Amino acid sequence: MKVIRTIDEMRAHSAGERGAGRRIAFVPTMGALHDGHISLMREGKGRAETLIASIYVNPAQFGPGEDLERYPRSLEEDLAKCEGVGADAVFVPDDGMIYPDGFTTGVRVGGLTERLCGASRPGHFDGVTTVVAKLFNIVRPDIAVFGEKDYQQLVVIRRMVADLDMPVEIVGAPTVREADGLAMSSRNDYLSPDQREAATSLYRSLNVAQKTIDAGETDPATIMGRVRETIEKGGIMKIDYAELVSPDTLEGLSEFRRPSLIALAAYAGETRLIDNRFFG
Amino acid sequence: MKVIRTIDEMRAHSAGERGAGRRIAFVPTMGALHDGHISLMREGKGRAETLIASIYVNPAQFGPGEDLERYPRSLEEDLAKCEGVGADAVFVPDDGMIYPDGFTTGVRVGGLTERLCGASRPGHFDGVTTVVAKLFNIVRPDIAVFGEKDYQQLVVIRRMVADLDMPVEIVGAPTVREADGLAMSSRNDYLSPDQREAATSLYRSLNVAQKTIDAGETDPATIMGRVRETIEKGGIMKIDYAELVSPDTLEGLSEFRRPSLIALAAYAGETRLIDNRFFG
Repeated sequence: MKVIRTIDEMRAHSAGERGAGRRIAFVPTMGALHDGHISLMREGKGRAETLIASIYVNPAQFGPGEDLERYPRSLEEDLAKCEGVGADAVFVPDDGMIYPDGFTTGVRVGGLTERLCGASRPGHFDGVTTVVAKLFNIVRPDIAVFGEKDYQQLVVIRRMVADLDMPVEIVGAPTVREADGLAMSSRNDYLSPDQREAATSLYRSLNVAQKTIDAGETDPATIMGRVRETIEKGGIMKIDYAELVSPDTLEGLSEFRRPSLIALAAYAGETRLIDNRFFG
Repeated sequence: MKVIRTIDEMRAHSAGERGAGRRIAFVPTMGALHDGHISLMREGKGRAETLIASIYVNPAQFGPGEDLERYPRSLEEDLAKCEGVGADAVFVPDDGMIYPDGFTTGVRVGGLTERLCGASRPGHFDGVTTVVAKLFNIVRPDIAVFGEKDYQQLVVIRRMVADLDMPVEIVGAPTVREADGLAMSSRNDYLSPDQREAATSLYRSLNVAQKTIDAGETDPATIMGRVRETIEKGGIMKIDYAELVSPDTLEGLSEFRRPSLIALAAYAGETRLIDNRFFG
C-alpha cells in the first residue's frame, strides 16, 4: 500500500491506475478510523479495481469553538487499518498543500446546507464540499463512498456532483453500529462512561419512531415527540434537532410518508452526536 | 466537425478522444464569434491534438438589467467559423441541461471577484466560475484558452483552477483588435457610429498611459489622470473604472511597478466596454 503525501504524486498514481484500465474507488476520511470507515472501504473495493483512501482533518469544516484541535489523530493505526482492508493507496495531504497562501475559492451548495446540521454549524458544509471537490479533482475517482450516518453530507455531495457535472458516482453505505446500537463515530471517543450509556438513547429513539410509524402513526409531532422523550429521559442528552424530513430536500414534512428521513443531533456534554433513519 | 447537444454525448466524445491518446484543448464561448474567439481556437489547436469549443450564453453571468436578452446570437455563422478554424467538436448545451430544476450549487472565488468588473457586476464572476467548472467537468480538457481582453476573468479562472486543483492548464491569449485599435467584443455590435468612433478612445488612452510610463512617470494618479482625460475628451464615453492594479491580486497600486495592469471599463450609451494593458 502506497502512502502518498503530495498532490503531484497522488495525481501520478491515479493516472497510472486509470492508464492501466482500473476503475478507482475513493473514500475520503478525516482519520480516526473505525469499523464504519472500514465498511466504506470494503464497499469501494467491491465496486472498483483499485481503492484509494484519504486521511485529512479538514480545518475548513470545523467552526470556531468546535473540536478541530482535539479531533482524534491516529495516523499509524489508521494506515494499518487501510492496509488491512486492502487499500491500494492512502493520500495524506497537509494543510499547506490543501489551503496554500492566497486560497480563496469555495464550492457551496445552497438550501440543503442551511438545514439540520447546517443550521447549527454555519459554513460546515461549505468546508466539506470545497475539500471534496478538491480531492475529487486530485484523485479523479470513478466512484466515491460516503456513509449514510452523515446523511445530510451524502445528500449535499450528491447535489454538488449533479450540479457541477462531476464525473464521479456517489455511493452511500449503511451506518455501522456498536453492539448496543450507537452509530460509530470518531467522536464517540470523547464520551465519559455515563455519556456513552446515555448516547444509546439516539438509537433507541429511532427504534421507538420505527414502532410508532409501523403502528400507523403519521403525525410528525406525535412521532418526533416520542423520539424526543426517549432521548431526554436520561437527562444527559441535549437535543440540537430531531426532525422528520424529506430525504431529498431535507425540508420538514407535515405528514409521514415514504420516503422520509428522521434526522437527529444531540449533545452529550460538549460532544455532538448525530444519527438518522431512512424510511423507504 | 461534430455539433454536440447533450452532456452525455459530450462526455462520450471527450472520452473517445482521451482514449485515443489525444490531448484536448477547450475554448468556452458565448457565441457571436469574432476574430478574437477564432484566435483563441487557433491557440488551442496549436497546443493539443483535438479542439473542442462550446457556445452557450450563460444566463448566470448576466445581472438584472444587463443585456442577456439582446446578447447577439448567431449559431449558424458561429458553427461555420468553428469549422473554418478546424474545431473537432462544438458543444451547444441549453439552459435546461446546464441549470436543471433544483440546481443550487455555486463556485465562488473570493476577493478577486469583488474588484473592477466584479464591483460593477455583482455575481457576474460567480456565474462565470460555476459554468466554467461545469464545462470543465463535462469536457475534461487538458488545456483551456481564455482571452486576455477579459483579464479579470482570466485571473479569476486561474485562481479557481489552482484552488480547486482542477487538472486543466489555463492559457491566456492576446487581445485581438480592430484596425483602429478597438478590442474585439461581441458587444461592439451594439454601438452606433458615433459610439463606435468614441470607443477607440479606450485603446488610445492605453497608448497614452504607455507613453507616460515610458517617459518615467510612476504616480498612478498622474498616469490614470491622462487615461481618464483621453477617454472623456469625446464626451460620449462614461468611465466605470480606470485603475492601475497588480495583475495577480487586482488590488490598486500606490506606485507604478512591473508587472502591473491598467484595466478600464466604460459605457458608450448602454454598452459597457472593457480593455486593459499589461506592463510586464
